[in-house]
Amino acid sequence: MTEQSYTWQTRFERLRSNKIFELFVVGVIIFSALVIGAKTYELPDFVVKLIHVLDWFITFIFLFEIIIRFIGEKDKKRFFKNGWNVFDTLIVVVSLIPISDSELALIGRLVRIFRVLRMVSIIPELRMLLNSLIKALPQLGYVMLLMFIIFYIYAAIGSTFFSEINPNLWGDISISLLTLFRVMTFEDWTDVMYETMTVYKLSWLYYLSFIFFTAFAFLNMVIGIVVNVLEQEHAALREEKSKADNEPTMVELKQELAEIKSMLQAQQSK
Amino acid sequence: MTEQSYTWQTRFERLRSNKIFELFVVGVIIFSALVIGAKTYELPDFVVKLIHVLDWFITFIFLFEIIIRFIGEKDKKRFFKNGWNVFDTLIVVVSLIPISDSELALIGRLVRIFRVLRMVSIIPELRMLLNSLIKALPQLGYVMLLMFIIFYIYAAIGSTFFSEINPNLWGDISISLLTLFRVMTFEDWTDVMYETMTVYKLSWLYYLSFIFFTAFAFLNMVIGIVVNVLEQEHAALREEKSKADNEPTMVELKQELAEIKSMLQAQQSK
Amino acid sequence: MTEQSYTWQTRFERLRSNKIFELFVVGVIIFSALVIGAKTYELPDFVVKLIHVLDWFITFIFLFEIIIRFIGEKDKKRFFKNGWNVFDTLIVVVSLIPISDSELALIGRLVRIFRVLRMVSIIPELRMLLNSLIKALPQLGYVMLLMFIIFYIYAAIGSTFFSEINPNLWGDISISLLTLFRVMTFEDWTDVMYETMTVYKLSWLYYLSFIFFTAFAFLNMVIGIVVNVLEQEHAALREEKSKADNEPTMVELKQELAEIKSMLQAQQSK
Amino acid sequence: MTEQSYTWQTRFERLRSNKIFELFVVGVIIFSALVIGAKTYELPDFVVKLIHVLDWFITFIFLFEIIIRFIGEKDKKRFFKNGWNVFDTLIVVVSLIPISDSELALIGRLVRIFRVLRMVSIIPELRMLLNSLIKALPQLGYVMLLMFIIFYIYAAIGSTFFSEINPNLWGDISISLLTLFRVMTFEDWTDVMYETMTVYKLSWLYYLSFIFFTAFAFLNMVIGIVVNVLEQEHAALREEKSKADNEPTMVELKQELAEIKSMLQAQQSK
Repeated sequence: MTEQSYTWQTRFERLRSNKIFELFVVGVIIFSALVIGAKTYELPDFVVKLIHVLDWFITFIFLFEIIIRFIGEKDKKRFFKNGWNVFDTLIVVVSLIPISDSELALIGRLVRIFRVLRMVSIIPELRMLLNSLIKALPQLGYVMLLMFIIFYIYAAIGSTFFSEINPNLWGDISISLLTLFRVMTFEDWTDVMYETMTVYKLSWLYYLSFIFFTAFAFLNMVIGIVVNVLEQEHAALREEKSKADNEPTMVELKQELAEIKSMLQAQQSK
Repeated sequence: MTEQSYTWQTRFERLRSNKIFELFVVGVIIFSALVIGAKTYELPDFVVKLIHVLDWFITFIFLFEIIIRFIGEKDKKRFFKNGWNVFDTLIVVVSLIPISDSELALIGRLVRIFRVLRMVSIIPELRMLLNSLIKALPQLGYVMLLMFIIFYIYAAIGSTFFSEINPNLWGDISISLLTLFRVMTFEDWTDVMYETMTVYKLSWLYYLSFIFFTAFAFLNMVIGIVVNVLEQEHAALREEKSKADNEPTMVELKQELAEIKSMLQAQQSK
Repeated sequence: MTEQSYTWQTRFERLRSNKIFELFVVGVIIFSALVIGAKTYELPDFVVKLIHVLDWFITFIFLFEIIIRFIGEKDKKRFFKNGWNVFDTLIVVVSLIPISDSELALIGRLVRIFRVLRMVSIIPELRMLLNSLIKALPQLGYVMLLMFIIFYIYAAIGSTFFSEINPNLWGDISISLLTLFRVMTFEDWTDVMYETMTVYKLSWLYYLSFIFFTAFAFLNMVIGIVVNVLEQEHAALREEKSKADNEPTMVELKQELAEIKSMLQAQQSK
Repeated sequence: MTEQSYTWQTRFERLRSNKIFELFVVGVIIFSALVIGAKTYELPDFVVKLIHVLDWFITFIFLFEIIIRFIGEKDKKRFFKNGWNVFDTLIVVVSLIPISDSELALIGRLVRIFRVLRMVSIIPELRMLLNSLIKALPQLGYVMLLMFIIFYIYAAIGSTFFSEINPNLWGDISISLLTLFRVMTFEDWTDVMYETMTVYKLSWLYYLSFIFFTAFAFLNMVIGIVVNVLEQEHAALREEKSKADNEPTMVELKQELAEIKSMLQAQQSK
């Protein structure tokens, strides 16, 4: 590597961690979000054209920013190990592909929408928040598996008994799962129930037991998260405490006392 | 018992606690769940026949697995003391009965659906989760009794006053209980209220007080569970702590000091 | 007081605290609840007559029980200081009044329904639960006052602007309060909103801010209760702890050490 | 300042902090709230006139009260630094402007409604409650930003794909945001879903993932508040504790022991 390129890298490194540069990028992202929002309105032709130009302008700023970040990174391999960097690069690269086919045009629009997510990749506090959310997910794994088993059994029962009453709600197991999710959110669940009660008088038992089980499992999930969070807090507190004060333990005090005693005994035996 | 049978038992015991065997059974259960799901779709004839064969195949694998688990168990009596074993055996035995009557056929299908619950009986984490859920229930007993009393009184009042306004909602006490459950889930509750308000102008008092009471009792129930869970956590933490560190107590330290003092006094009086 | 009456009172006192007697009364209350439930169904004439007889029978058992409880109480004044005793007596006395007027007949039926509440007055655990619920209420006083102020202001605004759009929902302030309660429970609130949005395009601000404020105040209320309950738990725990172990405090240990030191100094100066 | 005016100020100061004066003002506010409520009903002409007179009467009492509070304040500058005082003054001043134009009349009515908020400015407990609510808001800033990003992305996707299916729900991004808020409150969300599912069969994925993300973010927000509140409680408790008991620390005890030991060693070496 020549000395010149080294200087360039240092410059980019400094630029990358510059607060004003970060704020500028955040500003561009917000502007890009507004452009995306504007596109959903009916607009006169010249505004549509203006937006099209702005769109490319934003894409190039993003391309420029990624390149700066890439050059600014000393260890090029580490750059693509960071999931957010990969995400950012992908968004920019796909935006660059010129699409005219109407089918693919939709994907182009989707990618432009996902640019708003770059907000999360830029602001560290949001990145941390999302990471902690994702970290909390697997701990709930077994509760969610249990919940899915409950859903599956009820959906199987539902499509076995009710499919002829209303195929739109209970036609097959996947529709039944959707209907049960609807029941769980209490969304017009009585309409669903009253309909099946005209054929099976006791089908209220099916719905009430389902609501009871899912509500209970959900409650358990929430409590699980709360207890988890509190425990983490306590653990952090305890660690911090034990670090802060170099307090002698009871065991140390007892040893001290034992030494004094033996000294006194030695005195007495003299 | 001959030596041969003893060897067989050991073999089965080893097989039973084999991780791969467990994973195989979990796989069969998942496959059986998929078959159950597939049956709810409209299928061509040959697939229906295939599923029928697969069904018997799964049943025999389950039968085989139970027999292995039974032989693998040293204490045959203990086998049936475990509720999950009884459940598994029942599911398999009922699946084996060939049913042609359409009425009983439904029961046969139900039993096949409940096979999915075998997932809970196989995976220890799910079994523990369900056990802890069931254990939490009786602690809520009195709150649920209080809630039922509130429901019963309101249902009795409702069917006394509103039964002539809308017999479908308030016809007798059991229908009224269902209607009140609906009001508690906020499902189109204003439609129910506006209807009775055309006759009794003040009946909003009935609904609002009911919502207030049940919401309050429910809140109390949730808090009860949370406090309970936290207490269990604390108790577990304390026990663990007292086991872990063999810390001398303050009482022991005081005794030590008293001994030292008496030794000094003995010295002085010399 | 003659000796005989004294013996009677002791007998009643013993009867009153007899477990079997209590269970018998609970049984009668449950039976009375079932009778109330039965009355809401369409019944043949002879059953109606039977129920009428059973009703009087239950009333007399309750009368008998109250008299026993009253005689069994040593301090007659204290008997009526207990709110539950007053409630029980009132329920029984009103049940005894023979009513034929149809208007008053409804009150008679209501009183019979409230007999189910006697369950709470008989079972001590339920009584405690209800007391703790009632005790928790005033602590929430200020949050509920704040919530009412929010409701009142929004209702006043609502009936000022929307009363001509839909008088059934916004006609006057009391109807508006009911409508806002409906919005808070998310019950068809968008129908209410879409209607006013046809006239005032920005009225979604009214609904969203209202939902936000009430949800936030409600959340605060819940947290208030949780923190309160946890504090009570902690206080109870601490008190219990300080009672249980007669642990010497750090202050005592320090005094001991000071004494030892002075003894040593005395020795040295000898 | 003459001596006379000084005496006046002292008098007003005393009046301002008088409990009876405060209760009187609270009474006037409640009365003013009732007048506002009364205005929403259809009333005979003479009552309307009476209310008009009462309205002015209340305005003058409020004016009078503010003047007393202003004179009673020693540091006149501090008076307007308190936000509540500014709010109170503004409400009174705007009430004093005589308005006849129908457009402005509505603003006049609004100002009179906001008088009820003076309840919060008068009662210190409510003021504290509101302050603590407002203080809790910025801590939730990042979670709310994340939630808004989720909303914005889903709204952009929604209006891109569904705008031709139902322009009333998905016409542009602002309408889509409102529709998504509706989906989050589970208000007839299945109607919205079933409509788009007729065109895009897989659009249930859109709704379910949205509900999942927002529910999860919301849960996180609630837990954030709870943990925050609990931490504040703990901090307050610890501080209080360390103030209350002047307990010697373990470190002090160890120093004492070290001194004793050195004294003994000195003795031995003698």
